[in-house]
Amino acid sequence: MSHNSFGHLFRVTTWGESHGPALGCVIDGCPPGIALSAEDIQSDLDRRKPGTNRFVTQRREADEVRILSGVFEDDRTGGQVTTGAPISLMIENTDQRSKDYAKIRDSWRPGHADYTYDIKYGVRDYRGGGRSSARETAARVAAGAVAKKILGESILIRCALIQIGPHNINRANWDWGQTRLNPFFAPDASIVPVWEDYLDHIRKDGTSTGAVLEVVASGVPAGLGAPIYAKLDSDIAAALMSINAVKGVEIGAGFGAALLHGETNSDEMRCSNDGQPYFTSNNNGGILGGISTGQDIVARFAIKPTSSILKEVKSLNRNLEEISVVTTGRHDPCVGIRAAPVGEAMMACVLADHVLRHRGQMGG
Amino acid sequence: MSHNSFGHLFRVTTWGESHGPALGCVIDGCPPGIALSAEDIQSDLDRRKPGTNRFVTQRREADEVRILSGVFEDDRTGGQVTTGAPISLMIENTDQRSKDYAKIRDSWRPGHADYTYDIKYGVRDYRGGGRSSARETAARVAAGAVAKKILGESILIRCALIQIGPHNINRANWDWGQTRLNPFFAPDASIVPVWEDYLDHIRKDGTSTGAVLEVVASGVPAGLGAPIYAKLDSDIAAALMSINAVKGVEIGAGFGAALLHGETNSDEMRCSNDGQPYFTSNNNGGILGGISTGQDIVARFAIKPTSSILKEVKSLNRNLEEISVVTTGRHDPCVGIRAAPVGEAMMACVLADHVLRHRGQMGG
Amino acid sequence: MSHNSFGHLFRVTTWGESHGPALGCVIDGCPPGIALSAEDIQSDLDRRKPGTNRFVTQRREADEVRILSGVFEDDRTGGQVTTGAPISLMIENTDQRSKDYAKIRDSWRPGHADYTYDIKYGVRDYRGGGRSSARETAARVAAGAVAKKILGESILIRCALIQIGPHNINRANWDWGQTRLNPFFAPDASIVPVWEDYLDHIRKDGTSTGAVLEVVASGVPAGLGAPIYAKLDSDIAAALMSINAVKGVEIGAGFGAALLHGETNSDEMRCSNDGQPYFTSNNNGGILGGISTGQDIVARFAIKPTSSILKEVKSLNRNLEEISVVTTGRHDPCVGIRAAPVGEAMMACVLADHVLRHRGQMGG
Amino acid sequence: MSHNSFGHLFRVTTWGESHGPALGCVIDGCPPGIALSAEDIQSDLDRRKPGTNRFVTQRREADEVRILSGVFEDDRTGGQVTTGAPISLMIENTDQRSKDYAKIRDSWRPGHADYTYDIKYGVRDYRGGGRSSARETAARVAAGAVAKKILGESILIRCALIQIGPHNINRANWDWGQTRLNPFFAPDASIVPVWEDYLDHIRKDGTSTGAVLEVVASGVPAGLGAPIYAKLDSDIAAALMSINAVKGVEIGAGFGAALLHGETNSDEMRCSNDGQPYFTSNNNGGILGGISTGQDIVARFAIKPTSSILKEVKSLNRNLEEISVVTTGRHDPCVGIRAAPVGEAMMACVLADHVLRHRGQMGG
Repeated sequence: MSHNSFGHLFRVTTWGESHGPALGCVIDGCPPGIALSAEDIQSDLDRRKPGTNRFVTQRREADEVRILSGVFEDDRTGGQVTTGAPISLMIENTDQRSKDYAKIRDSWRPGHADYTYDIKYGVRDYRGGGRSSARETAARVAAGAVAKKILGESILIRCALIQIGPHNINRANWDWGQTRLNPFFAPDASIVPVWEDYLDHIRKDGTSTGAVLEVVASGVPAGLGAPIYAKLDSDIAAALMSINAVKGVEIGAGFGAALLHGETNSDEMRCSNDGQPYFTSNNNGGILGGISTGQDIVARFAIKPTSSILKEVKSLNRNLEEISVVTTGRHDPCVGIRAAPVGEAMMACVLADHVLRHRGQMGG
Repeated sequence: MSHNSFGHLFRVTTWGESHGPALGCVIDGCPPGIALSAEDIQSDLDRRKPGTNRFVTQRREADEVRILSGVFEDDRTGGQVTTGAPISLMIENTDQRSKDYAKIRDSWRPGHADYTYDIKYGVRDYRGGGRSSARETAARVAAGAVAKKILGESILIRCALIQIGPHNINRANWDWGQTRLNPFFAPDASIVPVWEDYLDHIRKDGTSTGAVLEVVASGVPAGLGAPIYAKLDSDIAAALMSINAVKGVEIGAGFGAALLHGETNSDEMRCSNDGQPYFTSNNNGGILGGISTGQDIVARFAIKPTSSILKEVKSLNRNLEEISVVTTGRHDPCVGIRAAPVGEAMMACVLADHVLRHRGQMGG
Repeated sequence: MSHNSFGHLFRVTTWGESHGPALGCVIDGCPPGIALSAEDIQSDLDRRKPGTNRFVTQRREADEVRILSGVFEDDRTGGQVTTGAPISLMIENTDQRSKDYAKIRDSWRPGHADYTYDIKYGVRDYRGGGRSSARETAARVAAGAVAKKILGESILIRCALIQIGPHNINRANWDWGQTRLNPFFAPDASIVPVWEDYLDHIRKDGTSTGAVLEVVASGVPAGLGAPIYAKLDSDIAAALMSINAVKGVEIGAGFGAALLHGETNSDEMRCSNDGQPYFTSNNNGGILGGISTGQDIVARFAIKPTSSILKEVKSLNRNLEEISVVTTGRHDPCVGIRAAPVGEAMMACVLADHVLRHRGQMGG
Repeated sequence: MSHNSFGHLFRVTTWGESHGPALGCVIDGCPPGIALSAEDIQSDLDRRKPGTNRFVTQRREADEVRILSGVFEDDRTGGQVTTGAPISLMIENTDQRSKDYAKIRDSWRPGHADYTYDIKYGVRDYRGGGRSSARETAARVAAGAVAKKILGESILIRCALIQIGPHNINRANWDWGQTRLNPFFAPDASIVPVWEDYLDHIRKDGTSTGAVLEVVASGVPAGLGAPIYAKLDSDIAAALMSINAVKGVEIGAGFGAALLHGETNSDEMRCSNDGQPYFTSNNNGGILGGISTGQDIVARFAIKPTSSILKEVKSLNRNLEEISVVTTGRHDPCVGIRAAPVGEAMMACVLADHVLRHRGQMGG
């Protein structure tokens, strides 16, 4: 049992505060012989890096990852491979500006974990949210990059932003290629100007907005997962809900399934000419009875609006005195914009864990 | 790690197939000295019992629970209390009618776990869904009854059905007392005739419908939960998503949070005249940074329409031949109707686990 | 985390008190498709059954095991196989004679867990030791029988009694076949009359004696286990030390290794004519760096003398009054005599777990 | 489940290879508000540091520990305290001399983990033993220093070396103060010249010798531990057996208990004049039924002779060719000399975990 670990056979333990000397993770259970370099991890980290467009926080950090253990030269290829030993990854915090946060030392900012950490622990690293900072997700993305290496190239995990505030994408325009071409990870090019306008408006108002993301894993073989409490969807729900600011998770038709009838919701099966079973729809999001069907695994998660805003909100301080909170620091008007790599990483970690668990019970 | 266990310090392991000789659970970690009798558990089981109204399956079972271990007479009170040893609970299966299921032996019924179990395990107890049957939730409800004993009377967990198909309750009419007065666990008396009509219609059509439930825990002290991967909301999401047929989970404002602005979503704090901090709203569903705020914990979960329907659906059998599936056995047109006690039980298990985890890290 | 579970991928949870209605275990993680009948388990249980010779307790119980879940007919062979679902095993307690124990209700018998259970839990099922009874080992033996099925016929686990009181076997006479021919599981036929005389003497004196057992696993492939905290020897030590009355565990040369020099202790390697590496000795007991070498895995464990004896010993009762304790019930003069099947079972459980863990990390 | 983690509520995950850039650990579950500075940890690390006397390896490293997370200034005291967040500790490797090891790249040194790592993982960081190096114990000692902080000053954990080769201490001379005054952690001053002579002789012979250590925890309250698979002695056995080169563990009378009779072995209880129960002996080593009695907890562990010796031993290389192995690098003739701080650390980690587990189940 562990507060800061995730997964079982592919087990990730993260550590670090937003403004401490460093943050990182230890990955235990990675099979040996997998080619892994810092660059493999860095490219995923760079995708979530702050400061890359005008809609995300201007905190600039190299977010440079170091592999401290668990890899060694492969005497056959000369390249660096995993050894089966725990992989320790570290990212130093270089741009900390801790003085910005002194004024929130005794404040319980609305929507933040300030009050609950104080009540629970009595002591709190208030600088930048400390352990509760979204900065912890850098460690997740690093771990996810290793997870993807285990999954290999046949499994592809992608995440798209599909809603900002009231503005949804048009699913008819879905093009994964677009998610790499705009700063929003939007799969629909036509939504980009709409969102730009909306976010400019939000920011001018000194407020923030929520978002919904969709993460899809393709190429997942049928048979991953297990009944009851190791259900793939249960683990995906836990993984996505553990991301900062996430308030909802759904699989396949999700909440919309409440509106469906049995014969519509039940994905029928057919057999292709070359003898392969397939499904005529995917309302179950690629999971039946907690086990993958071989279809795309489809999950969505909702992110609440950033709690740190320029607009004044009221709250209390540790002396139970009423205070006004106005956050002037660097903050995203919509944290969902940077959440796509995190959603991918969590899906990758869940799947890598289940690939290993499947091998454990089933062999092969 | 365990496929069939849930929780850490309050750890529940369930076992049993729908049509095997029995099903049950082992509860490890229950503190000693808690009064516990079979009747305490039975009353919760009776609330989910099949055959209690015309909208649920007519399978009639006593669902009588036996406590096989972990309790003993208290020499002070003479009553039966927990001893700290594992509590083994067993419910015998008495009305099995296995012959009803012989015809589905080789079929992959759409929306069921038949295909995925076959692909994964190669062998499957097909009778009544075997391990994937909703009957497994009886063991959850039994465990939840023990969890409630740990939580004590100051924490109250209730679950209501708030949507069937397209028909939502009117939240202005919310009255918890109503949930005990109608067969739907509806908190709004005015929705009952609407749902009755709708379900009659659904059943006449030989189909089924989905539903949404809301589970609320009141009296939970601030400080339960922990950051990152032991977040209360992450564990609630895993727990609810592990229930059969659940496809979505949300906390507080949930998916609706995507539409809110920062200042609306952020629950402000004030101080009461007698010096108690309180919140002016509860969009975060009683959880901030994964830790309880002391407000009601509010979660919702969506249940897909029953996959077993009278209407013909197409699928494949194990020989990859196309088949028609018509389910004539005993089945609920909306499994959500019986899910309220299960939702309560899972919430109770999560909270009991976190009460013990909190003690473990923090003492007290 | 669980007080009453053992193993990770092959995970056994035991429950039950000595004089409750039943005891049993739930095995989670057993791969599907393994032929398993109650008879397979019963034959191991019968080997530890009380009342089979004059040196063990005369409590007579059928110890009949029932499989309540996790198996189903294999449609290819018609036989019963595991399904991958949890296997629930139950043994009813039929000969309980609880009244024998009423007098120890408030006593803290020396060498027993009475005092520590009372101090910890405040309530205690005193009948026959309750949860602390050696009767719990029946559940271990049942689980071990399933573990052996996973290991298959190429891995052979055997346990021998090698010392009772001061009387050691002569290792030159070691013959595994003998362990099935005498009531002591002795591998040396010449020690049998010595032990019989000694135990008659011990029993006449109203006292008891300790013992040492050796458990050997043959046919274990090289590569099982893992560094640091999943070392095979670390898990074997935990498993054997968890058996009632065990006070010491050693691997290979064990405590004797302290007397050796580096060149003697280090098992050298050679290559056979057919190109197979082998070791010229086995001081390391088949494990190097926590990982199996392919040699026999050799462990020994020491069992303290039975604490329940006819001789009067002094102690306290719950009122802190001095008392005399004389145990007139049914008790073994040397519990080591019945420990061999338990030692085998624990070794089997550890190895089955590591076989699955190895698959999990390494595939294959 | 984790190969490189130890403990449940006080959970330590270690990482790092002997000649990688660094090694360290992450401690999850430490309660908040405990004063902790790098100096607190450093003092324990310095006690195991190589190069401090002529009988241990001359590798000289600062072994300087950095706390990377989990501590923050306490606004009441101004001092640094734990926050409840994971504590990440790192020790950089500064004196690596990796070239010394190039020649063993393809060799399977007898008594080392070379063969088993190669067989299992196919790739191996051979430099200094990589992950299998005793250098990993530095991370354990660091974690143990944090564990001691949780246990507080009322629980005192000490470890003594009691046997080198055939030379035992005289227990009548036991004086814990001596363990700090000689380089052997010997509690008997009179054995020191004997061991010095013996080790000089051993070293001149180019060989090595084994040892036995005893670790004692005083001030442990009655009631820690739990039945069956969370027994305190089972966890101590696992912890000590996980230390490199340990081949045996015993509790209290240990293997000697096999020689005792029931009435001798059973520690009787009496009541002191001031109403405190006490025991007249401690053959059970402070543990009954897996739960602490309040007496000293006494465990011993045996360490095999160092496998790296100057004397030539035969083995194979990866091509299955016979080789001669002579180890000329820096090595201890008896690794037991440096094992006392490691034994203390493991005992501290087990007890800290059980203190938290006890709180978890029992409150308080």
